[in-house]
Amino acid sequence: MNTEGPLSEILVIDLTRVLAGPYCTMVLSDLGARVIKVEPPEGDDSRHFGPFINGKSVYFASINRGKESIALDLKIDKDREIFEQLLEKADILVENYRPGTMEKLDYTWEELHERYPRLIYASVSGFGQTGPYSKLPAYDMVIQGMGGIMSITGQPECEPTRVGSSIGDITAALFTSIGINAALYHRQTTGKGMKVDVGMLDCQVAILENAIGRYLASGEIPRPLGSRHPSITPFDAYKTLDAHIIIAAGNDALFNKLCVAIERSDLTTNALFLTNHLRTEHVIALKAELEIVLTTKKTEHWLKILGEAGVPSGPINNIEQLLNEPQILARNMIVTIDDPVVGTLKIAGNPIKLSAFHDPSTRGSVSEINENREDIV
Amino acid sequence: MNTEGPLSEILVIDLTRVLAGPYCTMVLSDLGARVIKVEPPEGDDSRHFGPFINGKSVYFASINRGKESIALDLKIDKDREIFEQLLEKADILVENYRPGTMEKLDYTWEELHERYPRLIYASVSGFGQTGPYSKLPAYDMVIQGMGGIMSITGQPECEPTRVGSSIGDITAALFTSIGINAALYHRQTTGKGMKVDVGMLDCQVAILENAIGRYLASGEIPRPLGSRHPSITPFDAYKTLDAHIIIAAGNDALFNKLCVAIERSDLTTNALFLTNHLRTEHVIALKAELEIVLTTKKTEHWLKILGEAGVPSGPINNIEQLLNEPQILARNMIVTIDDPVVGTLKIAGNPIKLSAFHDPSTRGSVSEINENREDIV
Repeated sequence: MNTEGPLSEILVIDLTRVLAGPYCTMVLSDLGARVIKVEPPEGDDSRHFGPFINGKSVYFASINRGKESIALDLKIDKDREIFEQLLEKADILVENYRPGTMEKLDYTWEELHERYPRLIYASVSGFGQTGPYSKLPAYDMVIQGMGGIMSITGQPECEPTRVGSSIGDITAALFTSIGINAALYHRQTTGKGMKVDVGMLDCQVAILENAIGRYLASGEIPRPLGSRHPSITPFDAYKTLDAHIIIAAGNDALFNKLCVAIERSDLTTNALFLTNHLRTEHVIALKAELEIVLTTKKTEHWLKILGEAGVPSGPINNIEQLLNEPQILARNMIVTIDDPVVGTLKIAGNPIKLSAFHDPSTRGSVSEINENREDIV
Repeated sequence: MNTEGPLSEILVIDLTRVLAGPYCTMVLSDLGARVIKVEPPEGDDSRHFGPFINGKSVYFASINRGKESIALDLKIDKDREIFEQLLEKADILVENYRPGTMEKLDYTWEELHERYPRLIYASVSGFGQTGPYSKLPAYDMVIQGMGGIMSITGQPECEPTRVGSSIGDITAALFTSIGINAALYHRQTTGKGMKVDVGMLDCQVAILENAIGRYLASGEIPRPLGSRHPSITPFDAYKTLDAHIIIAAGNDALFNKLCVAIERSDLTTNALFLTNHLRTEHVIALKAELEIVLTTKKTEHWLKILGEAGVPSGPINNIEQLLNEPQILARNMIVTIDDPVVGTLKIAGNPIKLSAFHDPSTRGSVSEINENREDIV
């Protein structure tokens, strides 16, 4: 079952495994593309990644739903023939092998481009197809460490902290999806495909936001700051009686509203806190003052008070709380798959809402290895 | 100066401010689109965000380079006329106002679509255009807190930890860019634009990776785990004599290579560490054993040893070290702008490398408010 979408006429041949590549082809699938996952006979490694329900990987299911599967051994002639027949019909080929693997299989970009001139070929890899580290092994954790994000994430003076999801893989998947869609658009005028080469490490550089600019402007190396913003105050997680609350009062007007709402108007005239610059300079003192009040009541109380006062604020939801947020449910961000083995499984929906297409609340099932061979060949 | 790319014929009218929207139109600009930034007479707020060089915001520069600027007050008739003339020529309109603002300006999607049927209209907002929270104010920090990522990022038993860059904004920018490019592709066959509605909170749900699956499979609420992987061991940041090292030894073969390389082959036959499952169960004991050895030498030493042994590993680079990584430089991920005020400024490059286009090492300059009016009107 395909989702209807802007890519409904598009055929993706998907050689990808584990996370970055499969996430990219999932995005294409959610935009309507037909995705044929070409797996080695032993299957994508991530079919064996936990957690499992009734022996089936929920990890694999969550990013490979709605894709068809065919098992092919690209070292065997008859399977290569089938693969090449698929490429004849394909619009997009995606792989996330270590660079050099496709060349070893005798599928270089130059040859593919000559033989299938309309084919768009996307590679996602740890370090990209070029450069001195290109052929090194890479995992999300290595990329997060090398890519700078870990140096600015965490509590000051604490152990290094990884972003809790694999944003090294996921941001690479997103940039690759952008490149593929732009290449599809461009093909409409030229008739030619192109190669899209995305490295996870490059993507980490691209998402560092103001850290590079702060370093270049000041010469100071940015450090982890816990939850707070480097240059806007109060903009942090604050203790309450039962948990924490996020408060993001980014200018004088919001700071005043905050102080009035928590009945600490005195803070607005305190010489230490008169401007955002001063508040950032005295960030620890201000946090202490605010927490004296905030720790007297529960998060829920303060969310109500600050919400009424128009001060941007919010809870720190855990995954269970998130899945019950009315906004998430209203936005169809939790969708389901019906799988004969797993049963009904909840997974994340598609955050790209398009006026021209329905946003379905279900996704296609999760194919076993080679399950769709007859529909494909 | 425009970058050449697949979107070279595309005109973007850009009403966006601060981060999520400008990041999206920067991505479009890096793909070759002409971006006309329509600012209110007082300019984008982020022109006043530090850090500054010679009084000019490096923050603003880093995501608004290569865009043209015109100042228009959309509440004034003659400026609305100019704006509407721009829409006649435009392919894409992007805004990141709080939902309802465009309607107050009398620019509803329905009217825009009727008047400019080919126009693609993208909105990026905190919570999206629909749902009970739609009109609430949102900042990255509020979204990170509400969206679950903060509940799985950080050290166990420590204070809440925000991801060190504004991934709430940036992932929304990336999903919006995907939607816009897919809509452009689709317009080629239908002749019609569509509306792309992306909410930052939705995007946080979409990037949680295995956290939702882990919760649904086990009923246990995922918690922050510091640097380690929830189900693969050893996969963590380990102390060395001078710093830390990332080691990602994701299977038995790599674990054996690791133990041999650090001369602790005994660990491979230790009953506590025989399988990945056992290693994850005894993650603290294993970390202690590994750190006994690793803390005797510096990170650089171990990177060489583990590199030669083929064990995925890497440093935790700070921003200064990152900017000097040979791979980053070889991939043209640090590019420059020449600005009359700031001088030569280094900024992040484009991680989408396309075979059909040159990847330039410079970007266009940073326009002052209204600087390009004469070229635009």
